[in-house]
Amino acid sequence: MFVVLVYDFAQKRVNKALKIARKYLHWVQNSVLEGEISDANYIKMKKELEMLMNPEEDSIILYTFRTKKYSKREELGLKKGGDENII
Amino acid sequence: MFVVLVYDFAQKRVNKALKIARKYLHWVQNSVLEGEISDANYIKMKKELEMLMNPEEDSIILYTFRTKKYSKREELGLKKGGDENII
Repeated sequence: MFVVLVYDFAQKRVNKALKIARKYLHWVQNSVLEGEISDANYIKMKKELEMLMNPEEDSIILYTFRTKKYSKREELGLKKGGDENII
Repeated sequence: MFVVLVYDFAQKRVNKALKIARKYLHWVQNSVLEGEISDANYIKMKKELEMLMNPEEDSIILYTFRTKKYSKREELGLKKGGDENII
């Protein structure tokens, strides 16, 4: 499946969160990663992030898509991420 | 259609960007908005944001979906946005 992950972590944990998420997904903007991921890795990634996060300070939203057939992606302005990964 | 908008603007323009995007979508996390939008409003919103943005400093990614049938949304940790809007 295809996943878009947006995170908002407190400064002291933000680098660790990005490091975990980058093991599974491609970084496309300061707080956004996306990519194809297996169900098993999706669960693994969530567990790692939940271990790190303080649920009273940090936030993650995950959008998952079974198919990309009905979706489109547009990028305006600066490309900030480290990897290219276009739907 | 359903839209997820993630933005990353320089500090001096970030409030204006959020103000524009909130006219059309619901704010769900520091730099993320989502919601149903017409094709006409989608174009209008993009134009307004492009007028404001400095393409060498600011960045927007827009994911649009014709249907939400094949998508899922999960939220971990703190709910930071102003509005509730679950897929």
